[in-house]
Amino acid sequence: MKLDGDWFTEIAAEEGVALSLQGRRLQVEQTPYQNIEIYETDSFGTLMVIDGCVMLTDRDGYIYHEMLAHPVLFAHPAPRRVLIIGGGACGTLREVLRHKGVESVVQVELDERVTRLSELHFPELTEANGDPRVTLRFGDGLPWVRGAAEASLDVIIIDSTDPVGPAEGLFTEGFYRDVLRVLRADGLVVQQSESPFLYAETITDMHRAMRAAGFADVRTYTFPQPTYPSGWWSATMAKKDGRLNSFRRRDAEEKGFATRYYSAAVHETAFVLPPFLRELLAAVG
Amino acid sequence: MKLDGDWFTEIAAEEGVALSLQGRRLQVEQTPYQNIEIYETDSFGTLMVIDGCVMLTDRDGYIYHEMLAHPVLFAHPAPRRVLIIGGGACGTLREVLRHKGVESVVQVELDERVTRLSELHFPELTEANGDPRVTLRFGDGLPWVRGAAEASLDVIIIDSTDPVGPAEGLFTEGFYRDVLRVLRADGLVVQQSESPFLYAETITDMHRAMRAAGFADVRTYTFPQPTYPSGWWSATMAKKDGRLNSFRRRDAEEKGFATRYYSAAVHETAFVLPPFLRELLAAVG
Repeated sequence: MKLDGDWFTEIAAEEGVALSLQGRRLQVEQTPYQNIEIYETDSFGTLMVIDGCVMLTDRDGYIYHEMLAHPVLFAHPAPRRVLIIGGGACGTLREVLRHKGVESVVQVELDERVTRLSELHFPELTEANGDPRVTLRFGDGLPWVRGAAEASLDVIIIDSTDPVGPAEGLFTEGFYRDVLRVLRADGLVVQQSESPFLYAETITDMHRAMRAAGFADVRTYTFPQPTYPSGWWSATMAKKDGRLNSFRRRDAEEKGFATRYYSAAVHETAFVLPPFLRELLAAVG
Repeated sequence: MKLDGDWFTEIAAEEGVALSLQGRRLQVEQTPYQNIEIYETDSFGTLMVIDGCVMLTDRDGYIYHEMLAHPVLFAHPAPRRVLIIGGGACGTLREVLRHKGVESVVQVELDERVTRLSELHFPELTEANGDPRVTLRFGDGLPWVRGAAEASLDVIIIDSTDPVGPAEGLFTEGFYRDVLRVLRADGLVVQQSESPFLYAETITDMHRAMRAAGFADVRTYTFPQPTYPSGWWSATMAKKDGRLNSFRRRDAEEKGFATRYYSAAVHETAFVLPPFLRELLAAVG
């Protein structure tokens, strides 16, 4: 069949696969960093696209935001100071703010226009941005982390675009060394790590780089993400010292806020990987 | 972006979403039942399409076949007699045959051309069809099950196309009553139950119909399926009597054959559903 009428299409060219969402473009903007488009789709609500790649839709963005924020926060014994690199749409930030114990969240997004367009088109994601615990900074996350004080943060969430283009430096050993330095004892980092089906090498590269940078334990978990390539996505968590084999299960069960994808049971099971992926990661060591 | 060159596109029209795979069509055939196409894709190997919907690709078909065969077979205490309804491509059949304890497998596929085209284009899936335990029948599964002897089967696997068109009758209470009758004590049925993200109603309808037919317990599990709509798929298992809360874990751990997606740990965790789906199913009762 052919796509007649108005459709947005994201092509993963080297993988010969494409996803299309029916809808009309509302806005397009070339910023100093990237191309941002906003669509109104027929069945997925509002869609934000950056450099031709789906960033989020109203219909499935919650899975990604919940799964980037809650696992790392419930894995940390008492997260108080949080940094988000990227995350300009502010959906991850909103989930972080649901944790009452969090005292401050700094978000360093490269492109202020992502946040401004989110305020306009995804108002529910940015509704908590006025929370006094929030500091929004706009600029490059790499020098920001390099300049941050040693042992000053509990949790760092890297909610970036793909490892090509502006976000490339966020997938390197040098950056992870800086991340390790600014984390306190018990500190954790989590980073979106692409499709385990299409881009497993991104995950194994990340494990290698995080271990080389000095992280004591690195683990990947997965979740569905219907509008990202292959519909299956991953994030990778690393711990400054000690093993990553527990989380505050009781607190997650009694979290006191609603989630649609995340739960304590989902948290636990998301880390169970299929044999093909377990074997790839075992080879990394 | 636009899809230039040769692409196959499956449009889930009512959901406003489409998946495209780059490749060229090798063959197309209109059978008495449906339209079958075979493509050679650039990155997913051979692709079979029925009535415009992806049936399987070389690259990701194993997830579906493993997840339809192994959970139900390891959930049954000693499966000896197995029936597959549909499954003409024979990938599920191949996985069933890996279980040494299985003594006979009857497969009832509506359209013989699906199997013949699979023999031609997916030879690795049909390589075990000569196994003396196998009986291949071609015809409608509904009257076949209606005419089957009471309490004659341990496991029934319903590996059908979507609940519109030829397979519609396989999603009804009347059919499930026949399934229940032909199952022995401890008998189990499993059926592919569509995308939990796009078509959760298919899953809740199936739960309602299976319970109304008299099944004692019904549970849904999920797995990624990158080339099916939304990239996230489900199957639903029902037990004739007793609870569906255990499986032969030790046997699954020591199964003696290789799998790429299924494992004992994956088995267990696949049944853990996210809150939005758990709540929908809790409402069914």
